[in-house]
Amino acid sequence: MSKHFTVVKKDPSSRARLGHLITAHGEVETPCFMPVGTQGTVKAMLPRDLREIGCQILLGNTYHLYLRPGHEVIRALGGLHSFMGWDGPILTDSGGYQVFSLGAMRKITEEGARFQSHLDGSTHLLTPEKAVEIQEALGSDIAMTLDECIPSDATRVYVRASTERTIRWAKRCVAAREGRDQLMFGIIQGGLFEDLRRYCVEEMAPLAFEGFAVGGLGIGEGEEQLNAIGSFTVDLLPVAQPRYLMGVGRPQDIINAVRAGFDLFDCVIPTRNARNGTLYTWQGKVNIKRAEFADDGRPLDGSCGCYCCRNFSRAYLRHLYMAGEILSAQLNSLHNLYFYHRLMDKCRETIRSGHAENWTQLWQPNEDT
Amino acid sequence: MSKHFTVVKKDPSSRARLGHLITAHGEVETPCFMPVGTQGTVKAMLPRDLREIGCQILLGNTYHLYLRPGHEVIRALGGLHSFMGWDGPILTDSGGYQVFSLGAMRKITEEGARFQSHLDGSTHLLTPEKAVEIQEALGSDIAMTLDECIPSDATRVYVRASTERTIRWAKRCVAAREGRDQLMFGIIQGGLFEDLRRYCVEEMAPLAFEGFAVGGLGIGEGEEQLNAIGSFTVDLLPVAQPRYLMGVGRPQDIINAVRAGFDLFDCVIPTRNARNGTLYTWQGKVNIKRAEFADDGRPLDGSCGCYCCRNFSRAYLRHLYMAGEILSAQLNSLHNLYFYHRLMDKCRETIRSGHAENWTQLWQPNEDT
Repeated sequence: MSKHFTVVKKDPSSRARLGHLITAHGEVETPCFMPVGTQGTVKAMLPRDLREIGCQILLGNTYHLYLRPGHEVIRALGGLHSFMGWDGPILTDSGGYQVFSLGAMRKITEEGARFQSHLDGSTHLLTPEKAVEIQEALGSDIAMTLDECIPSDATRVYVRASTERTIRWAKRCVAAREGRDQLMFGIIQGGLFEDLRRYCVEEMAPLAFEGFAVGGLGIGEGEEQLNAIGSFTVDLLPVAQPRYLMGVGRPQDIINAVRAGFDLFDCVIPTRNARNGTLYTWQGKVNIKRAEFADDGRPLDGSCGCYCCRNFSRAYLRHLYMAGEILSAQLNSLHNLYFYHRLMDKCRETIRSGHAENWTQLWQPNEDT
Repeated sequence: MSKHFTVVKKDPSSRARLGHLITAHGEVETPCFMPVGTQGTVKAMLPRDLREIGCQILLGNTYHLYLRPGHEVIRALGGLHSFMGWDGPILTDSGGYQVFSLGAMRKITEEGARFQSHLDGSTHLLTPEKAVEIQEALGSDIAMTLDECIPSDATRVYVRASTERTIRWAKRCVAAREGRDQLMFGIIQGGLFEDLRRYCVEEMAPLAFEGFAVGGLGIGEGEEQLNAIGSFTVDLLPVAQPRYLMGVGRPQDIINAVRAGFDLFDCVIPTRNARNGTLYTWQGKVNIKRAEFADDGRPLDGSCGCYCCRNFSRAYLRHLYMAGEILSAQLNSLHNLYFYHRLMDKCRETIRSGHAENWTQLWQPNEDT
């Protein structure tokens, strides 16, 4: 068992596990959700408010920070923790996902991914070595290997070639790392093909990583495939290492993935939905824009203990949204992230207690969008 | 001396005074700055963060709240304090200023001001009685009389007629008020004509108001006229009542007005400038967009104790602004409002200490814009 991660307890009724992850900036109880701090800030959240809602670890986006303000600027300022005023753990992605989703004119070669900045059109080359260099400059606690996030409708031929390249890139990341206090996770690709997922794990598992991530899911393949490929792949991964399902997702997706054995999650859903007026309650999703809330004096969720629900009404939240007020994004983000963190609390509590019947009662998605 | 206001101390070197204002939702030490909460929120500020920076009293805008969400909605939800989660004092303006600055197709008659909503073009009539009714529905601690804010380039003939109408409207406001726990301030107009300002005070001072405001300044007349007409008019007002200079202004304007004898202030400058990247420090104004700050690891103001200056660098604030992040508005607003509140602390301390030489050292505007 590696010293940075301990499986504290296994759930008797599923493959879920309670874990303890040690990083250079503190410890993380898993299963854990990581809010996304794309540009060096979790949108609309002060770091102290993240602390208050129980946030343990943030995700930072290498692509965005590399382009603006630049990783060397952040390095010179003492690293990303100091830059963004967050002294807890930070995981950075490798930048690969954004190169493929945001960068223009991208061209993948064995060397790496060449792309044009979505900000100013300037040309850049992201290699595995560069991805490691940037993440070391940022000083994150956990770095990710450079991978290609394969579209869910890619052909088997493409997926095979891409996955093989992702494996070669992962090996180059291992070779490039200078280590010190930074953990590194390898990313498993392989699309929706079980044999390619297995192949990728077989190649990656022996490499010197402190954890593994499953990528290329939650990108339009549908809930059934997400659950099937996710649980198939996580089962192949080393049990003694933390296992991270990248970019997923909705509360029900996270519950399913926890039960399948994943330990770490990140997703923009709680914060992006917040800014769009879609809020999570224990009774289901709520579209705060709806006219019925115009004079509704009740809190969004009477059972929620967040600052938003303790102090404001649905009518006020609707008003802020309709009026385009910044406070709308602030309160909604605070609430949704609070919800996600309590959801993870409940997952951990369910594993701890061993009460299998709790899993199905954690969250029931409603029809409200 | 009226029971709601006490002049605690007079400054030996100026007309400034230290005061104590009692409202239904708490006490206010004057001179005091009121952050502007236009649409039921001080933009980008959680109420608890307003408390933390020492905010004593907020200003709410009757025009905006009347149009959206509507004063009857707010009344049914328990009033503006409950609606916006602020249990401290609130002053509401009468809506007049926004009718003239935002409303389309406005037409002033003796009855009131007819206008079209800037939101949906619907037609409304704001009378003195309506302005009182709305403010009573909002449940503010201090209501203002309906006035016409006269453009600074208006002719003497127009100013005279308008001021006379404002006086008649003020009398109708007094007649309409049901009082209870709400204080009401009369607004002095008269443009840039000293004799019309004097005439307005003579007509208004005998009316049953708990305070007086000077309106129609800070709207383009220039610093010299602002100071001259402001200090001329404040000197005519009852010394035992609180005196409020509406909508002004920059730190240097506020210092001058405090020294002239004003007690209350409001202005969008600290919050609007914050959102535009213009920040106040004790060394002067700073445009955080400037390239020189890109790698500047120092706090915005090393002598400032606000959350922003204690935790973040100029480089980070510039980055947030350049990246269009919501957190930029949050941190900048928090800092600028903290600065304004410390400025008011220093004004009060200067009066308390009687050290006349302190006035000139409070704040020196620089050339930086």
